[in-house]
Amino acid sequence: MPEGPATITLAHGAGGRLSHQLVEQVFKSRFDNEQLRQGDDAAELPASKFDYRNSNLAFTTDSYVVTPLFFPGGDIGRLAVFGTVNDLAMKGARPLALSASFIIGEGLAVVTLEKVAESMAAAAREAKVRIVTGDTKVVERAACDGLFVTTAGVGAVLPGTAPSGANARPGDAVILSGTLGDHGLAVMNARGGFGLGGQLLSDAAPLWDLAEAVLAAGGVHVFRDPTRGGLATTLNEIAIQSGVAITIDEAALPVRDTVRAAAEMLGLDVLYLANEGKLVAMVAPALADAVLQAMRNNRYGRDAAVIGTVAEGRPGVALRTAIGSHRPLLMLEGESLPRIC
Amino acid sequence: MPEGPATITLAHGAGGRLSHQLVEQVFKSRFDNEQLRQGDDAAELPASKFDYRNSNLAFTTDSYVVTPLFFPGGDIGRLAVFGTVNDLAMKGARPLALSASFIIGEGLAVVTLEKVAESMAAAAREAKVRIVTGDTKVVERAACDGLFVTTAGVGAVLPGTAPSGANARPGDAVILSGTLGDHGLAVMNARGGFGLGGQLLSDAAPLWDLAEAVLAAGGVHVFRDPTRGGLATTLNEIAIQSGVAITIDEAALPVRDTVRAAAEMLGLDVLYLANEGKLVAMVAPALADAVLQAMRNNRYGRDAAVIGTVAEGRPGVALRTAIGSHRPLLMLEGESLPRIC
Repeated sequence: MPEGPATITLAHGAGGRLSHQLVEQVFKSRFDNEQLRQGDDAAELPASKFDYRNSNLAFTTDSYVVTPLFFPGGDIGRLAVFGTVNDLAMKGARPLALSASFIIGEGLAVVTLEKVAESMAAAAREAKVRIVTGDTKVVERAACDGLFVTTAGVGAVLPGTAPSGANARPGDAVILSGTLGDHGLAVMNARGGFGLGGQLLSDAAPLWDLAEAVLAAGGVHVFRDPTRGGLATTLNEIAIQSGVAITIDEAALPVRDTVRAAAEMLGLDVLYLANEGKLVAMVAPALADAVLQAMRNNRYGRDAAVIGTVAEGRPGVALRTAIGSHRPLLMLEGESLPRIC
Repeated sequence: MPEGPATITLAHGAGGRLSHQLVEQVFKSRFDNEQLRQGDDAAELPASKFDYRNSNLAFTTDSYVVTPLFFPGGDIGRLAVFGTVNDLAMKGARPLALSASFIIGEGLAVVTLEKVAESMAAAAREAKVRIVTGDTKVVERAACDGLFVTTAGVGAVLPGTAPSGANARPGDAVILSGTLGDHGLAVMNARGGFGLGGQLLSDAAPLWDLAEAVLAAGGVHVFRDPTRGGLATTLNEIAIQSGVAITIDEAALPVRDTVRAAAEMLGLDVLYLANEGKLVAMVAPALADAVLQAMRNNRYGRDAAVIGTVAEGRPGVALRTAIGSHRPLLMLEGESLPRIC
């Protein structure tokens, strides 16, 4: 920073000279692309370049308020990029462009903001998407304890695909792309310092390539990423949207040993912990093997497993335990882990 | 609210049952439309309905942190809808769809959130746009003093138009669509209570219809809405982007008497106050009259005026005062009015 202050001040948010300097120094240099460089209040995506004319559009947004801002395996910026890319991917949509809006607490170190921007730029490259437009606001120290990031994304829905939480059908196989609970425990550990530093890593990852490969295998009725609220909550949402009964098999759930041990120690259920790089698919039974193989061939789906089935019945989710009994798996009640994403 | 608590708790943000109930009760019922009803992580906009195939897309985002949440003439919800609609309009783009993401401080009254949602729904109807996707997060009381709203918007750029801050040309007329300073002073007054209650109203308004009418008149090189930082800052941005010298005429600036009096009393310069329902256009001189008429024929452009001219020269802005002298008009320095939008 050639001349500005080393921490963010309210003046950085006033829309004047310091706001411009901050945007130039922190964001424009890192996110650099043709659309952002236009410097207008909205970015223009030329039809000739972004190839959406024969597709429906997908559109999504999420705010990120995770604390701490940095944790093993990720940071607020990576979550904000991948989370929005993944919400598009779960609709069968190739990500076209992201927006990023920053609400900054007065007093945040400019280098912290630069680290987040750097991480977002790297995440966008990894997810093959551009951050084309954005905004920054600054609020008093008492009104924001650091940094909130909101991303939105536009995608082009792959023609002929229509995964939706409302499309699960009796007989479908339930396939999970990998291990449960990594993100939730990584953030918990970063907060509490359970001495499990290097062993608990967030799974934050971009899922479009994986989703595209799975869609190519065919038979996908539902895609959903089990983030906040965990797999149990996501499955309940799908059960309600589709009007079906879902049963999952405890013994089939992929969970890392370190995560299992830490969750037990802390009295947490991995089925309710947030994931940031996993998807769950409901797939026509004849194509379940093909989808499982497609997942396992992708770097983000190596631990994929068939974890359950869909049946007719009262909408809800049941867990078949290791000893063969069934118990209802409800939607998350209460707060669990605040500010996990 | 049939059963939930009357104030927002951290559990409302956990992604479980209470989160779902909040979204259903507060947002889905009010924003109701086919896309939102799908209930997936991303909304799908069918090409057959949203008519964007022959257009470039415009994409924009802004966060709103205004305090207080409600003020004469508007509220955070109206600002969030109109602000994003206007950023699309300034690019010559018809708004297609908005996203809305809410960061809520624990303890906010649910009825307050409902009032904001109601206002956003009304604003979206007024602007003829749908809110198709969204997110809610809850943070501790100490981390957010009420409510932050982030909207993003997708629009279809009117074929054949390309207004940009970089396109001002020597000889262009500078035309302002109405009075200056209304929003900034309305919010200041709502905070400080200067006893000017009913007389100072925010100008928050959706500008697409006005922009469309002006584009039809022809000759528009630049469109920009002078929000945070005021007209002086906006003109400086354009001067830099286009590499031109802009001169404006103090005597020609439309300002309401009550606003002028209040600004003088408070020692504020209307040229640096935020506007939320005005646009400034730079127009080929031969079409300046046609554009002025088109503005005046629109309900949001009745007080439009030609306020200056564009010339070759060192990029910058000058004010010709009422007595004929010139003074440089710089970009806003420092903080002026924090949290004005």
